Amino acid sequence: MGQNLILNAADHGFHVIAFNRTVSKVDRFMENEAKGKNVEGAHSIQEFVSKLKKPRRMMLLVMAGKAVDDFIEALLPFTEEGDIIIDGGNSHYPDTNRRTKYLAEKGIRFVGTGVSGGEEGARYGPSLMPGGNEEAWPYIKDVFQSIAAKSDGEPCCDWVGDEGAGHYVKMVHNGIEYGDMQLITEAYDIMKRGLGMSADEMADVFDKWNKGVLDSFLIEITRDILRFKDDDGSPLVEKILDAAGQKGTGKWTAINALDLGMPVTLIGEAVFARCLSSLKEERGRAAKLLEGPTPKFDGDKQEFIDNLEQALYASKIISYAQGFMLIQNAAKEYKWKLNKPSIALMWRGGCIIRSVFLKDITSAYRSNPELENLLFDDFFNKAIHKAQPGWRDIVSKGALWGIPTPAFTTALSFYDGYRTKDLPANLLQAQRDYFGAHTFRIKPEYANEKYPQGDNIHVNWTGRGGNVSASTYTA
Amino acid sequence: MGQNLILNAADHGFHVIAFNRTVSKVDRFMENEAKGKNVEGAHSIQEFVSKLKKPRRMMLLVMAGKAVDDFIEALLPFTEEGDIIIDGGNSHYPDTNRRTKYLAEKGIRFVGTGVSGGEEGARYGPSLMPGGNEEAWPYIKDVFQSIAAKSDGEPCCDWVGDEGAGHYVKMVHNGIEYGDMQLITEAYDIMKRGLGMSADEMADVFDKWNKGVLDSFLIEITRDILRFKDDDGSPLVEKILDAAGQKGTGKWTAINALDLGMPVTLIGEAVFARCLSSLKEERGRAAKLLEGPTPKFDGDKQEFIDNLEQALYASKIISYAQGFMLIQNAAKEYKWKLNKPSIALMWRGGCIIRSVFLKDITSAYRSNPELENLLFDDFFNKAIHKAQPGWRDIVSKGALWGIPTPAFTTALSFYDGYRTKDLPANLLQAQRDYFGAHTFRIKPEYANEKYPQGDNIHVNWTGRGGNVSASTYTA
Repeated sequence: MGQNLILNAADHGFHVIAFNRTVSKVDRFMENEAKGKNVEGAHSIQEFVSKLKKPRRMMLLVMAGKAVDDFIEALLPFTEEGDIIIDGGNSHYPDTNRRTKYLAEKGIRFVGTGVSGGEEGARYGPSLMPGGNEEAWPYIKDVFQSIAAKSDGEPCCDWVGDEGAGHYVKMVHNGIEYGDMQLITEAYDIMKRGLGMSADEMADVFDKWNKGVLDSFLIEITRDILRFKDDDGSPLVEKILDAAGQKGTGKWTAINALDLGMPVTLIGEAVFARCLSSLKEERGRAAKLLEGPTPKFDGDKQEFIDNLEQALYASKIISYAQGFMLIQNAAKEYKWKLNKPSIALMWRGGCIIRSVFLKDITSAYRSNPELENLLFDDFFNKAIHKAQPGWRDIVSKGALWGIPTPAFTTALSFYDGYRTKDLPANLLQAQRDYFGAHTFRIKPEYANEKYPQGDNIHVNWTGRGGNVSASTYTA
Repeated sequence: MGQNLILNAADHGFHVIAFNRTVSKVDRFMENEAKGKNVEGAHSIQEFVSKLKKPRRMMLLVMAGKAVDDFIEALLPFTEEGDIIIDGGNSHYPDTNRRTKYLAEKGIRFVGTGVSGGEEGARYGPSLMPGGNEEAWPYIKDVFQSIAAKSDGEPCCDWVGDEGAGHYVKMVHNGIEYGDMQLITEAYDIMKRGLGMSADEMADVFDKWNKGVLDSFLIEITRDILRFKDDDGSPLVEKILDAAGQKGTGKWTAINALDLGMPVTLIGEAVFARCLSSLKEERGRAAKLLEGPTPKFDGDKQEFIDNLEQALYASKIISYAQGFMLIQNAAKEYKWKLNKPSIALMWRGGCIIRSVFLKDITSAYRSNPELENLLFDDFFNKAIHKAQPGWRDIVSKGALWGIPTPAFTTALSFYDGYRTKDLPANLLQAQRDYFGAHTFRIKPEYANEKYPQGDNIHVNWTGRGGNVSASTYTA
């Protein structure tokens, strides 16, 4: 990743100093990939720092965690006020908050930047999401926007916000990536097990989808994966173990959503789906003991596939709406200024979730930066209304067929819950007051002298007992 | 809560010393509720400690967090080796881990105990879930099991396990309580909006359900709540604001599940459902902009309600199966010895989730303490198979009608995913290898010389590029 970013910057006319703690790697890089490029090797931290123009712009690409702190400490003796240290790893945003403050006290401007796009993105144009000490931005803007991916001529990189805001937005990006991937696997499963389609037939569907509203990197590679044959001519994907790892940023996003009290259900289900997949052997035993229906399809196949496309599209709209709800709430909670149109723009190109779809989100936030919810935007409002019948059909079929669609269904539950003025949580509040004297409030339209609006009300539901209070009980 | 536990213990023949930092509360308690009982008041910590028999058994019922640490520090100067301090608050289990170790170093035996049952439970028989320093158990067993609820003559209290295991199990109990409550509200919503039933009609349904497999405290109080009338004769529950709080143990459970990589999806959705409910005003605006279908019911009403009962029952089985999966995994992760039949037994009576259902879970774990999953037990296996058709019908109807059932649906998705030998996560692993060189493994049945079983395999999906590796990239 680091090497590719260096080559990318060199290609854009920047003179880059390369350093690695394993000095032999520097030599090997200089003799091979970097040969003849605008790159210079350094064999010690001191040499690395001394070769840089002031204010120095030093970018780390090391494993998130302790290695970042260690490297910062190793750099500090050689730096001076105004220098800029950039962490381009997958750091957790609270660490970036801490480092920004810590280094500001030492006069060093710290930037934590999300970098997405994998190896190829790093080499030819990643999505870059920098945040931290804003004083650094004028010094790094040129190189960052030069090496970043371009979408319709605009760089997929802009200043995100204070402290760990860049890494925060990258974290949500990865959470959304979990969601997008899960949605695609559900569509694949429905086609494979529900319609009995072959890998090549499914590849054709993804190819077609990639020319419509779902046009995106992940749909494109899914097509390629489905077409990829093993030596025996059969699709390799079918031989891959169905156990996915999850220990990273998707999990962080779901935990952060729980902490902020934001219903980011699709990412939550996507993370849990990976957890469930990893119980491969237990599932094997369960498959022998737990029965279900056999999918029987007898409708119009093309119509069903079109419905599936709409289910995927609608669920994706919900996922991004949830992601932006989370980001919006985080900005409030952490007191960050955030630029929503820029965030969508940064995700339009270069990164794993890049898509035509993000162009529409960029437009939505550009035409109204104060948009309360993506679903309130005209374009998405119309899109989700159009997608609804097909989406409901797929969710309902999945349930009747016994094919799990946790992400499609949670998206639909969210949509139906979000558009419901009166949810059944009134009953839940009554229960909490009944057994724990937790109190409730009254709906504004029913407020009166006995039950004033905004008051915490307790009712003696049983007619028994006295004046209990629940100051220490939390349900 | 503290006062009620004192009265409960006194009723069972124990001599109790009562203390509160607000001394006037002690006097008021002694002159009123505790008058004539086997209770003695103390006006200082020193007096409180000096009046206790050795080894002293001192139980705190204060707000979780700093207050517990403060109180422990205040007690320490007056205690001696072998004394027992018990925290009966809703402490987070990592705090209890820490306190157990800290106090063991000082020769003090610390116990963190879950207490469930609300005010009434505390007074007449709570569910108690003690864990921590097992040396304390022989000294507190008698009083704990005496004051605890009884179920078929057995006390709903037993030693849970090491360190924070008691508070951990209480945390999962509360998470499950979140799930049970959410399931009930979904059933209520389907009856109310899907079938257009009145509160009294729904009360009759819950009354009937309370005589069958769903027989439980929460179903019982739901019946009572639905029958409770405001002064104008209308059901009070319909006037209660549908915005539920969530900041506590439900959230902790979901976060812990994510941390341990266990798919506890139902509690996750229940917590998120509360988050969504709390966005009351935003939902009001959304309701005006976002359309959905109008439920149209034209089948056999009683059959539908029976299906609903099965949907609730099946979802509940899934929720408890997930909860026990989590507990089982935590025991492994934290190296706690845990007694699963006892856990189910402790929840059978006294606590908020008490039910006939937990009797069946107790039986399942008693007949096989090493049961891998609740769904593998004969009784529950049969029960969920029987419930399936109705459950699928309700989930499918909810989706088509536009009534959100996030907990019913996530339970069904889990069931269908768990019983699937080959999930579509193979595609997800291929995607991760494609864009990030994350590698994948091969299914055992396809392992060969080229793709050996257990190896981390990377494939050059595009035919382009070289030998990239993704040591720093985590998706």
